[in-house]
Amino acid sequence: MEAKESSSWRRTTYCGQLRLNHVGEEVVLFGWVHRHRDLGNLVFIDLRDREGLVQVVVLSSRGELLKEAKKVRLENVIAIEGVVKRRDEKSRNPSLPTGEVEVEAKDLKILNTTKVPPFVIVDPPQASEELRFKYRYLDLRRPSMQRNIKLRHQTALNIRNFLSESGFLEIETPFLTKSTPEGARDYLVPSRVYKGRFYALPQSPQLFKQILMISGFDRYFQIVRCFRDEDLRADRQPEFTQVDIEMSFIEKEDIFNLVEGMMAAVLELIGVKISIPFPRLTYEESMEKYGTDKPDLRFGEEKSFRFTWVTEFPLFEWSKEEGRLVSMHHPFTSPLEEDLVLLEKEPLRVRAKAYDLVLNGIEIGGGSIRIHNLELQKRMFNKLGLSQKEVEKKFGFFLEALCYGVPPHGGIALGFDRIVMILAGEESIREVIPFPKTTSALCLLTGSPGEVEAKQLEDLGLKKTKA
Amino acid sequence: MEAKESSSWRRTTYCGQLRLNHVGEEVVLFGWVHRHRDLGNLVFIDLRDREGLVQVVVLSSRGELLKEAKKVRLENVIAIEGVVKRRDEKSRNPSLPTGEVEVEAKDLKILNTTKVPPFVIVDPPQASEELRFKYRYLDLRRPSMQRNIKLRHQTALNIRNFLSESGFLEIETPFLTKSTPEGARDYLVPSRVYKGRFYALPQSPQLFKQILMISGFDRYFQIVRCFRDEDLRADRQPEFTQVDIEMSFIEKEDIFNLVEGMMAAVLELIGVKISIPFPRLTYEESMEKYGTDKPDLRFGEEKSFRFTWVTEFPLFEWSKEEGRLVSMHHPFTSPLEEDLVLLEKEPLRVRAKAYDLVLNGIEIGGGSIRIHNLELQKRMFNKLGLSQKEVEKKFGFFLEALCYGVPPHGGIALGFDRIVMILAGEESIREVIPFPKTTSALCLLTGSPGEVEAKQLEDLGLKKTKA
Repeated sequence: MEAKESSSWRRTTYCGQLRLNHVGEEVVLFGWVHRHRDLGNLVFIDLRDREGLVQVVVLSSRGELLKEAKKVRLENVIAIEGVVKRRDEKSRNPSLPTGEVEVEAKDLKILNTTKVPPFVIVDPPQASEELRFKYRYLDLRRPSMQRNIKLRHQTALNIRNFLSESGFLEIETPFLTKSTPEGARDYLVPSRVYKGRFYALPQSPQLFKQILMISGFDRYFQIVRCFRDEDLRADRQPEFTQVDIEMSFIEKEDIFNLVEGMMAAVLELIGVKISIPFPRLTYEESMEKYGTDKPDLRFGEEKSFRFTWVTEFPLFEWSKEEGRLVSMHHPFTSPLEEDLVLLEKEPLRVRAKAYDLVLNGIEIGGGSIRIHNLELQKRMFNKLGLSQKEVEKKFGFFLEALCYGVPPHGGIALGFDRIVMILAGEESIREVIPFPKTTSALCLLTGSPGEVEAKQLEDLGLKKTKA
Repeated sequence: MEAKESSSWRRTTYCGQLRLNHVGEEVVLFGWVHRHRDLGNLVFIDLRDREGLVQVVVLSSRGELLKEAKKVRLENVIAIEGVVKRRDEKSRNPSLPTGEVEVEAKDLKILNTTKVPPFVIVDPPQASEELRFKYRYLDLRRPSMQRNIKLRHQTALNIRNFLSESGFLEIETPFLTKSTPEGARDYLVPSRVYKGRFYALPQSPQLFKQILMISGFDRYFQIVRCFRDEDLRADRQPEFTQVDIEMSFIEKEDIFNLVEGMMAAVLELIGVKISIPFPRLTYEESMEKYGTDKPDLRFGEEKSFRFTWVTEFPLFEWSKEEGRLVSMHHPFTSPLEEDLVLLEKEPLRVRAKAYDLVLNGIEIGGGSIRIHNLELQKRMFNKLGLSQKEVEKKFGFFLEALCYGVPPHGGIALGFDRIVMILAGEESIREVIPFPKTTSALCLLTGSPGEVEAKQLEDLGLKKTKA
């Protein structure tokens, strides 16, 4: 037989959800002490949980209880048993959703005490970002962070349901995969079984999603973590989240329709209606008219949401650093058929079936119709200056896959962190990522990256070089 | 202005969805050639897409088209324009959902050709697992794999919607985190910015989900990839997917109710009704009665689904190898209050607030009520033989977090791959993971882990030791 559980209070409602219709009800609340005012014969406690604040009052008539209530400190975890009362007119707080009621305590338990927090939990935050990252669990208690993380959840769920209803399957791709250093630097993971060999964390599931098209899944998506070991700018993180989409037997119009519908559904979450289809500009038009490929079409209306597609990006750009052509998008992007004749002689004039989605001057996504022809893919690697040996080593498995019945396909990847940032009205993706890293890729909360034991390195067949 | 897209056919329906009610309709289909029978003046093609097969017939009256249809090879990607016809009685195929109709082709395009596949795409598979992993994109074309991956998608979506409707927020936790080697071996990720220091890939988001409770999110879940660098047994993978759940201000009853409702909803996906609540056994009862802590309660009814909770696991077990007590669950598991008196003198008799969920003799999940008291958590580390210095180094940040108003909390983690495996009626999780690795952690498709360039290691301040 199981041991008996200690009898315990059960929550009846969240603090932040109490309204006039609860008046007269007996409630049990759990939460954190947000404010504490001891008026001598009366104690007021603002109790906070994920849904908001409510005022609790402990009356002088409650002798022992009042004593207990005086002991309470900020950020203590407490339980309250009490009755919901209507506040009288002059004590109502219209700035609080629960401001028309208060809870008259009949019992109170202190469930856990607290050291004095290193900063006050208040919006806007007053502590430095450094301190907030170190004590992220306290920073995340701020109502605006609770709201942002909830919005992030709702946005992901909304996207998942929208895409599923549109016939897409969410399919997981590996995190321990192959290093194919094109573009950004890979994070490597040493193999213990095969010493001296490495997995890489994916910069995106690009090849896997194309392979899923070759597998016949037809419509794939994934909300997925991606990794880039770059020197970080303000709006970048070493790990970030992407809405990754791929479809077979389609043209770019199909991608545009889908994403427009999806963004409209997402914006409804914050009560914003947008009109579709979105306007389009070719890369050339955008550069000529706005001098950028990420035009902000708000023109002063700061609170609106202005999307635009930018299409027909150049297939290549010239890298001075490397002295060779590099892909503007990635090496799997299809050129426009009508520009194929320029590929050998004027490659920089070749336009690609590539497109970006721009929202309020921020690039929130990019994609393309892919190459599904083996010979064209080989030509592309060749134009990028990759030797046949390099191609074989890095992309051999993919070229092999291109031999076995590849459907025409294309897709897009959207920056999920940026989308949530814009929805939340924040200026930085760090405000919508639960546990962000600093610009030098440190996690101040856990102290990672950290030292590891000598034995761990030894197991991997590695040693540190002299500094 | 955008360049004009080449006019192209648009799919009207999936092959596998054609039924009698489509008779007379003009359709455009895309897919792979599953069978090809050339009868001279008549060609039959079984066209396959994600939803199934349909028979296409090319009649002798279609001169040029018949010639084209003769060129088609197995696994070619083709497009068909045609009319849906009712098959006459004697040519109906009752074993095929589309078997009452066929499509009479009016036009046909070969969109891509194919090398001869290394194995036939057929259920059950006839190739070795090794070959199937190398050509996973071909193996995934098997109808049973298409079904399994679709079921995996539906299961994840179902769980996400169930938990969201129950007030849970899906919150992403970091993949680049801190190495805390307790239990299995971590996968390490070298830092380039801080040479000689390492991130670790999470074995589970255990500490982060507890920190999210400290942050006040109250109800968290995540369907999340986890990593363990272990010598693999048949039913293990180096990366696997977990349904991770945590709640505040609850008892184990709340976890049980939630998970029972969730599993009932998941089993409805395959048309199975189960009765809740699930039976319970204490660890002691289970060992006494069945000689195992993973009892199979089907007793011969092989096709049924029999769940049981196993509760009150011992808090510790004795590790001969290490000559010390180790946690049976993990070091954050709360002991039963009534057994606390035994902690110093008879620790092996202390029972924990830990529970496993067992389905048909397979452990599909495990969890516990956690320790939310700093002093008890320190005592626990002490009993596990960790020095104060070790504790500080590995878990210092977490002990610090335990100082700042921790709610009572608990949770569970469920093995998502195993759940889908059981739903799909498969014997191995490799049949429900899109891109599995071998038991020596190789990806035969991409060839990872692979060699990396010397420069990449140099950037990380690492070199290989002599073999």
